[in-house]
Amino acid sequence: MEGVKLLGHWASMFAIRVNIALAEKGVEYEYTQEDLAEKSQLLVGSNPVYKKVPVLIHDGRPVCESLIIVQYIDEAWPDNGPALLPQDPYERAQARFWADFVDKKIYESGSRIWRSIGDAKEEGKKEFIDNLKLIEAALGDKPFFGGDAFGYVDVSFIPFACWFYSYETEGSFSIEEACPKISEWVKRCMERDSVSKSLPDPHKVHESLQLFLKKRFVKE
Amino acid sequence: MEGVKLLGHWASMFAIRVNIALAEKGVEYEYTQEDLAEKSQLLVGSNPVYKKVPVLIHDGRPVCESLIIVQYIDEAWPDNGPALLPQDPYERAQARFWADFVDKKIYESGSRIWRSIGDAKEEGKKEFIDNLKLIEAALGDKPFFGGDAFGYVDVSFIPFACWFYSYETEGSFSIEEACPKISEWVKRCMERDSVSKSLPDPHKVHESLQLFLKKRFVKE
Repeated sequence: MEGVKLLGHWASMFAIRVNIALAEKGVEYEYTQEDLAEKSQLLVGSNPVYKKVPVLIHDGRPVCESLIIVQYIDEAWPDNGPALLPQDPYERAQARFWADFVDKKIYESGSRIWRSIGDAKEEGKKEFIDNLKLIEAALGDKPFFGGDAFGYVDVSFIPFACWFYSYETEGSFSIEEACPKISEWVKRCMERDSVSKSLPDPHKVHESLQLFLKKRFVKE
Repeated sequence: MEGVKLLGHWASMFAIRVNIALAEKGVEYEYTQEDLAEKSQLLVGSNPVYKKVPVLIHDGRPVCESLIIVQYIDEAWPDNGPALLPQDPYERAQARFWADFVDKKIYESGSRIWRSIGDAKEEGKKEFIDNLKLIEAALGDKPFFGGDAFGYVDVSFIPFACWFYSYETEGSFSIEEACPKISEWVKRCMERDSVSKSLPDPHKVHESLQLFLKKRFVKE
């Protein structure tokens, strides 16, 4: 039962957060690639409420929901390098706000780009760009969201970078043009091993998205 | 700019969380009742992303999103009585999981009871009861979610108790029958001043819901 296990998926922006957080903290772990079409008994049993990746299993005890897992990693290994969350209560609240914004607004509007057609697709695209601009304003001219150090909001948002090509291709727009500071921030994050080793090739992500959309289309 | 202000609404389960957390911590504050049909400039300016209550303004700096505010209160006034979040990282993760579950599953399925008709309404009701049973199992035989002490999950979930009458009336079912341990937990929480003084009369909540549904119906 001892040790750290991660049930993840190579293309899931939520699961990739956990790979990055564990790498940042230098925690060794056993990785299991889940087949989302046929989820393992371990996944279903460890996350009975959502039955979703990622699940972190630490000494036999499962932790679910990616942002909760990242905070758990920060708190369970406090001596492994710098903290991901800032120390100041107000800055912590700000960091939590923007990580939550990524889930509530960026993920949601982004998914509408490829799940919808016509007006709904255009609306999703417009909202996605508006949301990117909001988070770009929160980044401002800082190297990372928390300032000079890579931290909680960076871990929460950077996995989306491997989906940027899919958003752009499906929506016909350029993130670099709309949000140049976000593009610069992505490059800065990619200089870190924890990020570059965790993010898959954006073209491979897009291929898997196309396969998913094709299957869905055939079913419907 | 100094001091603590809360922009809230008497019937919002999210805003009431903040009233309870501030009362638990014995923090004095200035309360503003927002008119949700005509939101104040202060609300819109303090929460430009969501434009929603609650917003806590501490020494001029706004904190948004109720669960983030409750955690902020716990961290900004660490010496004001017992902590709301447990100390152990795993227990903290569990507490965050269930508070998040209240938002993602209980609120969402509950709202479908009165926002839908026919099959969708029945489905919302079934899911709402299933979700209540899941959180009831997490409570188990403990007095409060964290054990013997009133804490983060209790603060996050107890405001829903003043909506229980609305769920029951609109959905024609009894929460006490379906989830007797949740009913006992509500009574236990209501013995605390922080809770009983923050929760409005369930009948008044139901009247305001009926008014809202009537307006919506007339508009459509």
